[in-house]
Amino acid sequence: MKLVRFDKAGTVGLGVLDNGSIIPLTALKERYPTMLSVIEGGDAALDEVRAVAARSEARIALDSVKLLAPIERPGKYLAIGMNYRKHVEEAIRAGVAEPTHQYWFNKQTTCISGPFDDIDPGVTEKLDWEVELAVVIGRKAKSVSEAEAPDYVFGYTVANDVSARDWQKHSPTFTVGKSFDTHGPIGPCIVTADEIGDPHRLGLRCIVNGVTRQEGNTSELIHSVWSQIAYLSTAFTLEPGDLLATGTPHGVGNAMTPPLFLHEGDVVRCEIDEIGAIENKVTAAR
Amino acid sequence: MKLVRFDKAGTVGLGVLDNGSIIPLTALKERYPTMLSVIEGGDAALDEVRAVAARSEARIALDSVKLLAPIERPGKYLAIGMNYRKHVEEAIRAGVAEPTHQYWFNKQTTCISGPFDDIDPGVTEKLDWEVELAVVIGRKAKSVSEAEAPDYVFGYTVANDVSARDWQKHSPTFTVGKSFDTHGPIGPCIVTADEIGDPHRLGLRCIVNGVTRQEGNTSELIHSVWSQIAYLSTAFTLEPGDLLATGTPHGVGNAMTPPLFLHEGDVVRCEIDEIGAIENKVTAAR
Repeated sequence: MKLVRFDKAGTVGLGVLDNGSIIPLTALKERYPTMLSVIEGGDAALDEVRAVAARSEARIALDSVKLLAPIERPGKYLAIGMNYRKHVEEAIRAGVAEPTHQYWFNKQTTCISGPFDDIDPGVTEKLDWEVELAVVIGRKAKSVSEAEAPDYVFGYTVANDVSARDWQKHSPTFTVGKSFDTHGPIGPCIVTADEIGDPHRLGLRCIVNGVTRQEGNTSELIHSVWSQIAYLSTAFTLEPGDLLATGTPHGVGNAMTPPLFLHEGDVVRCEIDEIGAIENKVTAAR
Repeated sequence: MKLVRFDKAGTVGLGVLDNGSIIPLTALKERYPTMLSVIEGGDAALDEVRAVAARSEARIALDSVKLLAPIERPGKYLAIGMNYRKHVEEAIRAGVAEPTHQYWFNKQTTCISGPFDDIDPGVTEKLDWEVELAVVIGRKAKSVSEAEAPDYVFGYTVANDVSARDWQKHSPTFTVGKSFDTHGPIGPCIVTADEIGDPHRLGLRCIVNGVTRQEGNTSELIHSVWSQIAYLSTAFTLEPGDLLATGTPHGVGNAMTPPLFLHEGDVVRCEIDEIGAIENKVTAAR
């Protein structure tokens, strides 16, 4: 199933994507008012969603709503750097040290925005793109092995790990340059884990103003999704709704010769097979 | 005012510390069920709290409750590294590069624990202490100047930025080693900003098994609290309840010769003038 959050005339709802329209989950609004409550509801909640979707005749046209980030503010938004070989090589050329372990950093949850929302450059002069497969955690995970990890995934979505390269380099922690407001567009939907099966076989692309700048496949991940969950959960607890951006393939603007950055009016499209596409336009700096 | 959260016989309440006992804010429970709701309520909420505290005759003995982290799960828990000169020097000796800008990293909010909760080492073999003044943000802050910054602070609390030094070094981002579950004890209360005034004059100490290991004063901060709020809010929005740990003075175990780490049964006490003390015992590794 492809689950969405949407705003229709000022009212926020959850729905299931069905051949280009939305089946609204209005009947479940009391029980599951938020995407997080669906996730926390586990298999039982998904069964209810499936049942409502199967019997509902209501359809909402996609172009009559505004799609929102498919999950409200999660507890954590973590992202792994340097997780595709060719991107590691371009990052090393751009001055980042070769990693010895999984290279995690945070995106502040305040940066999360909708799949078609604008990107505000804010104070950066080096605005860059990074298409990534993002994992939505489904169950509380602590000390989970790689073999068990698939059971802890609720689903998958598309993320653009928008990066302010100048501010990212203020410290080796990346913290401040990875989290400008609006620099975390995700969506357009969460595809449930059962529909994806093995997530290590998905093509992903980033297209800037119609030109393909990144093209990769999650089969090239250095640390698999399962390995990521195992590693993080060795240290701390992952919770339902937590987001893990699993790394970006090569082709970021910062590594081009000369570097290419985003400016007002540019349109960045990130797409992943079997999930969909998000598309965000860059506004004028404030 | 010194605000606390406590658990009394399984019921969580908010209260005001008053000469060693707690004035419960039961009368406000409907309007302000959580500390976050008090913070979001702004000056009006604080006025109500003050009024209830002034007229209430009820008192709860401190030893009849368990004090909890004074704020529930905030949206962000950020911490600045390398913010006391002598600590910068000891960190450089331990292999960290000299910072060029404010050096922010995240503690995952899942690591937050109560002021007297145990510290679980988890899988680290290099468990270390860091006493820090923590700021509780009071109002949504974006592009706030240093001069305006005091208006955005709700209050202050004591934090132990417990650190797993081995895991911290897995990547230059610090992410994984700073956020083990239970590695974020805070408390014992939030002292409201009006009661502290200028926060750059507070003595702070970390005492391990009765031996003072860190002793400093917030007057020694390299980047002031106001500068921290200005810098972060240039990049992204701070929200009510967000926590900023403002740096630790020198004297961490990792920088001692030879290094000294925490083990089962050790007791770490972190105290800050005019706020109070938290004390956490290290349990056996799981």
